Amino acid sequence: MPLVRVSMRRGKPATYRKASLEGLYQAMRETFNVPEGDRFMILTEHDQDDFVYDPDYLGMQRSDELIYIQITANNTRTTAQKRELYRHIAAKLTANPGLRPEDIFINLVEVLPENWSFGNGEAQYVK
Amino acid sequence: MPLVRVSMRRGKPATYRKASLEGLYQAMRETFNVPEGDRFMILTEHDQDDFVYDPDYLGMQRSDELIYIQITANNTRTTAQKRELYRHIAAKLTANPGLRPEDIFINLVEVLPENWSFGNGEAQYVK
Amino acid sequence: MPLVRVSMRRGKPATYRKASLEGLYQAMRETFNVPEGDRFMILTEHDQDDFVYDPDYLGMQRSDELIYIQITANNTRTTAQKRELYRHIAAKLTANPGLRPEDIFINLVEVLPENWSFGNGEAQYVK
Repeated sequence: MPLVRVSMRRGKPATYRKASLEGLYQAMRETFNVPEGDRFMILTEHDQDDFVYDPDYLGMQRSDELIYIQITANNTRTTAQKRELYRHIAAKLTANPGLRPEDIFINLVEVLPENWSFGNGEAQYVK
Repeated sequence: MPLVRVSMRRGKPATYRKASLEGLYQAMRETFNVPEGDRFMILTEHDQDDFVYDPDYLGMQRSDELIYIQITANNTRTTAQKRELYRHIAAKLTANPGLRPEDIFINLVEVLPENWSFGNGEAQYVK
Repeated sequence: MPLVRVSMRRGKPATYRKASLEGLYQAMRETFNVPEGDRFMILTEHDQDDFVYDPDYLGMQRSDELIYIQITANNTRTTAQKRELYRHIAAKLTANPGLRPEDIFINLVEVLPENWSFGNGEAQYVK
């Protein structure tokens, strides 16, 4: 059920964007109990003026390769799981498409399980 | 106060997009106590590589006509109201613009009433 | 840590968009205890059909200059701070780029401090 929004600067090849989304999915599978096939993601590209980041907030050196990852998911994960998720995302995306770890920005938005409909007008996660 | 973000594949005619937004508004009016005129929506279109969905998660057959609907709204609705909302959205959008019910993905993000300003720098929902 | 999404109609010059983002950052600095350099923002532009607002909900007269501001931030601010934020945003953006106060729409989405990674796969706000 995570709904993932990924934002980056314009101009990356399709393979690069695809690898980013694939790595995110794998990291969620490994740490967030995300079932196989639960893959719902939107990627947007932005021009320089419209894509603002601080180059050194909290002592890291960020670059134009920065990727914003905003994940809306159920509020059922522990702090430990969230930390694992961040680590796995960083590991996956540095391996492929080869992002620098400093350029990976992640934010989680948590909601109730009843806040999803995966189709057919039903609330599939309500018992 | 709902702020609605709708995402779909690129290329639908304006009438199709307009009907989608109108149906959403009507469904919110009917089930979520949304006052007349409380209509604030953003629609974005995406290319294939940037618009990822699983074609059969939870046993439904999804297609490229999939529509992502993310609604940020006050945390004042019951589970029953949410289920009604999903049903009404599916009914409206299958009627017009003619979506398949399997292609309607909905997510609610809930916030406090004090988390809105509708203009003039005021928090209109704070008593 | 706020992640800010700004949406407006297409066609504003870069100086206008830049001033909007700068004013938002200053308003957050002044009212939300946002540290220097904590500036992470995405701006998107939209065509008329895809950018829907009500022209007079709650008795205000809105125009096509409307700006949607959605701020995801930690759930650590008081109601008073939120009201101050709205006031400061309105003051900044009416001064520059010269928005009408009725055209400033703000929504806050609150999350836990552990819901952020600013890079390196770490949860910087977890003690």
